[in-house]
Amino acid sequence: MLRTILWKNDKVAMIDQTKLPGTLEYVEYDDYKGVADAIKRLVIRGAPAIGVAAAFGMVLASRQSSATTLKDLLRDLDAARTYLRATRPTAVNLVWALNKIYDTAKMSTDAQTARDVIFKEAISMAENDIITNKTMGRNGSVLFGDGDTIMTHCNAGALATVGYGTALGVIRAAAEDGKSVQVIATETRPIQQGSRLTAFELMHDGIDVSLISDTAVGYSMANGLIDKVVVGADRILSTGHVYNKIGTYQVATMARQHNIPFYVAAPLSTFDMDSEPQDVVIEMRRSAEVSGPPENRTAPEGVNVLNPAFDMTPPELISGIITEAGVATAPYVESIKKLFKANF
Amino acid sequence: MLRTILWKNDKVAMIDQTKLPGTLEYVEYDDYKGVADAIKRLVIRGAPAIGVAAAFGMVLASRQSSATTLKDLLRDLDAARTYLRATRPTAVNLVWALNKIYDTAKMSTDAQTARDVIFKEAISMAENDIITNKTMGRNGSVLFGDGDTIMTHCNAGALATVGYGTALGVIRAAAEDGKSVQVIATETRPIQQGSRLTAFELMHDGIDVSLISDTAVGYSMANGLIDKVVVGADRILSTGHVYNKIGTYQVATMARQHNIPFYVAAPLSTFDMDSEPQDVVIEMRRSAEVSGPPENRTAPEGVNVLNPAFDMTPPELISGIITEAGVATAPYVESIKKLFKANF
Repeated sequence: MLRTILWKNDKVAMIDQTKLPGTLEYVEYDDYKGVADAIKRLVIRGAPAIGVAAAFGMVLASRQSSATTLKDLLRDLDAARTYLRATRPTAVNLVWALNKIYDTAKMSTDAQTARDVIFKEAISMAENDIITNKTMGRNGSVLFGDGDTIMTHCNAGALATVGYGTALGVIRAAAEDGKSVQVIATETRPIQQGSRLTAFELMHDGIDVSLISDTAVGYSMANGLIDKVVVGADRILSTGHVYNKIGTYQVATMARQHNIPFYVAAPLSTFDMDSEPQDVVIEMRRSAEVSGPPENRTAPEGVNVLNPAFDMTPPELISGIITEAGVATAPYVESIKKLFKANF
Repeated sequence: MLRTILWKNDKVAMIDQTKLPGTLEYVEYDDYKGVADAIKRLVIRGAPAIGVAAAFGMVLASRQSSATTLKDLLRDLDAARTYLRATRPTAVNLVWALNKIYDTAKMSTDAQTARDVIFKEAISMAENDIITNKTMGRNGSVLFGDGDTIMTHCNAGALATVGYGTALGVIRAAAEDGKSVQVIATETRPIQQGSRLTAFELMHDGIDVSLISDTAVGYSMANGLIDKVVVGADRILSTGHVYNKIGTYQVATMARQHNIPFYVAAPLSTFDMDSEPQDVVIEMRRSAEVSGPPENRTAPEGVNVLNPAFDMTPPELISGIITEAGVATAPYVESIKKLFKANF
């Protein structure tokens, strides 16, 4: 199984996803600003993986800090938290992980203890991510049948987490349960996480995968090629509104049009129980992701581009939200509340 | 205005669309097999443009033929027709133009007259294409209001026709009528006709255009950015079933979801009044269009790819079909029949 991020020789090592599928290579950081840059440039991406990367970034910041008092260390950690938080505005796991690490430091008695406990906390966050994903996989596997062809959008796989994956974790669990499953992966423009990452990791694990353009979602469903859909999430509200990679909303709408069950798989750390839809900032990314790099432009120079990174799928299009605490179903407000109660 | 294809010095000259948007350059053919190759490789594309290219291909074939009798010439023209028809199976204008040229030759008295009349027929087909598009533009312009933002998919512009365009022709006509209109163009993977051609030709003509990934259709509509949609067509059945570039069906579904009018603009030569949906062959194109060329792969080597070039939009999602004979609306069977009666 691919391991996306780990702590190694006092550094954070992560697969450089900008080089996939051509080259599988780890890059190491000993500076929290380097980690922030990696998150921004999508060297590492996927809500759960970003959370763990940010946590390790905080560990690096604690070691870069020359603070000898807890107060001074907390000041430096708060600056690092602000810096890391600014990288990507939509995924909620980032904020969740940064706050968890900062709060852990705050409860310590002195600077050195704080450095130790946040290191342990970050390590456990990484290990727990895999355990969470495997539990989520178990919870979701029952929803998929032998012979199912499953559509997924973007990459909610091992490469979006520390390992195993959320949406692809559920597919892995179904395969481990002996079910013969096939995957149809959307390319997922503009960054092509479907082609570059999902196709790569499923082929790596020997799971049958076919790639389509994002334009072929409707064709595939209308021609009876898809039995179920499962995607990940970057943020889920208490009402069941799901923020995920741009294009998810139209995949969900097409699934509904064809009576195909549409599932979301995400850990409880992806839930934002405090925000309303109008509070969620959709990250707008740079034009060149759509119009192509200068040496390989696919659109005329100077063309206007609108490049939102995420969209919102309303709860009425979602058949179930698979978490490590169980599967939430409509009505979501009550169902999600129950999962949180059961888990804490 | 861009002129996509013309007859020049006994050759067919056409803009090489594989080089856009970087280079605007004409390529010339004096061999009908060269024209067939150009159609296959998408040097020229768009249902009406392909029709005219095929007609000029037949003219070249008539001149390449050493036949001295009409019977021998018809034999050579029939072979050329078969060769040209095999290039792309879905667009109906191709077959329409080939048959029209062949039938014109067949009605001649001798080989030399046949060569002359089919040349005149091909020239008039090309000139009529522009006239047809301008009439279609007039018919469609009234459907668009001042200040409208119009989404279009693929390229149904000057570059898909001899000039002026079908869907983009309607937008041009609205602009010529003094309406301030903006266009949001989808990239249109895998070939990116939206980025490469639609953005290029609208910027060339000074019409405001913004580019989005195909994944951002739902986002744009949900956020109130789109007032109307207009697309072209490669084949329209007597029932109003529209075959157009892959992804059209999901744009139409999303438009319906958001109560946004969805229009199709196409000449009567795009109608196939004889076929049923089950008769229409959807062209499947090669994997590398989706997975990328060897030097710039975006998907792992050997990945399975499903690459349909077209999909079908059912009549219930279509607000109107704009033609040179008027605008067809539901119920389509009667409405389309009326347009044909009015025109012939």
